[in-house]
Amino acid sequence: MQLLENAIREKGRALNSDVLLVDSFLNNQVDTALMAACGQAFAEAVRDQGIDRVVTIEASGIAPAMMTAMVLNVPMVILKKSPSKILNEGTLQAEVFSFTKGAPYHLTMKTAYVHPGEKVLLIDDFLAMGEAAKGAASLIERAGAEVRAIGIVIEKSFQPGRGLLEGMGYKIISLARVAAMSENGVTFGLADA
Amino acid sequence: MQLLENAIREKGRALNSDVLLVDSFLNNQVDTALMAACGQAFAEAVRDQGIDRVVTIEASGIAPAMMTAMVLNVPMVILKKSPSKILNEGTLQAEVFSFTKGAPYHLTMKTAYVHPGEKVLLIDDFLAMGEAAKGAASLIERAGAEVRAIGIVIEKSFQPGRGLLEGMGYKIISLARVAAMSENGVTFGLADA
Repeated sequence: MQLLENAIREKGRALNSDVLLVDSFLNNQVDTALMAACGQAFAEAVRDQGIDRVVTIEASGIAPAMMTAMVLNVPMVILKKSPSKILNEGTLQAEVFSFTKGAPYHLTMKTAYVHPGEKVLLIDDFLAMGEAAKGAASLIERAGAEVRAIGIVIEKSFQPGRGLLEGMGYKIISLARVAAMSENGVTFGLADA
Repeated sequence: MQLLENAIREKGRALNSDVLLVDSFLNNQVDTALMAACGQAFAEAVRDQGIDRVVTIEASGIAPAMMTAMVLNVPMVILKKSPSKILNEGTLQAEVFSFTKGAPYHLTMKTAYVHPGEKVLLIDDFLAMGEAAKGAASLIERAGAEVRAIGIVIEKSFQPGRGLLEGMGYKIISLARVAAMSENGVTFGLADA
């Protein structure tokens, strides 16, 4: 998506060959018009697939997932990164290793909000190692629903996430594919939407 | 807001006189049409106030804040509940005691995204003791910006949050004010928008 690639080029900041900071339009400050465009692009990519709900992972997935769910006119479901302190009845959990944080966390989904037979669009902000998406997809499937596609705002295509997920049979829709990056800038590959 | 009160009445679940679960439309599963209506209501309530940005707290504030920022056509800024593992240069922090979790956490704001002189609409999902909003407002003010109003989706008006914040001079805009609740249901007071 050209608008997104422009934002990454102009406002993103590659700290090194691995860490891309997009705080200024995606993770901390959120560019509302850009998120609306991402929502439109994801919705367009799954048109006629009968998506029943959009599932995302707190916190950075929420803004793009919200805009996508709005266009598709379906509910959005948020997976939490730790078990609730209030009530854990009716939850499914998957352990996910975060390479960013260097530690595992428990991805938690309430089964009340994903139903058997439903068609789900899973959305997350980044795809790198694929661990978070893999864990989220496993929760959706344990609830009896189907992951029709995994929508990614920014894919780091030099990391193994896409290979891992495609190898498991998932369809990936990335709005921007970063092929390489350094302090001198970012090189893009062909995006899916 | 009638639509919101209806959702609380029909889909909310008061566990006791203190804990209101709104997982099915606000915290876990998010009703996109309802969030759009909340965004419209907040935006209407601050019309002509020249709001420069919407600030919210992860994760449950993001959906309503996103919709509000969209209507106002301004950026949304997300305050994190713990310091970043990647980069903490240029951040301000405030310690906030969470009565839900029974422990304090560090609310963290990047100063790059809130500028001196800006007019800010602060949005959060719940107002109870007022500690989170107080901490968030202090960060915005330490960055030199002005908190024009604090928008709350659901206020528990039997708790001291509003009194605390109004006593500090803040204007509160609550879309639903829960006056009392029990396992038998919820009683509402007059909402601000």
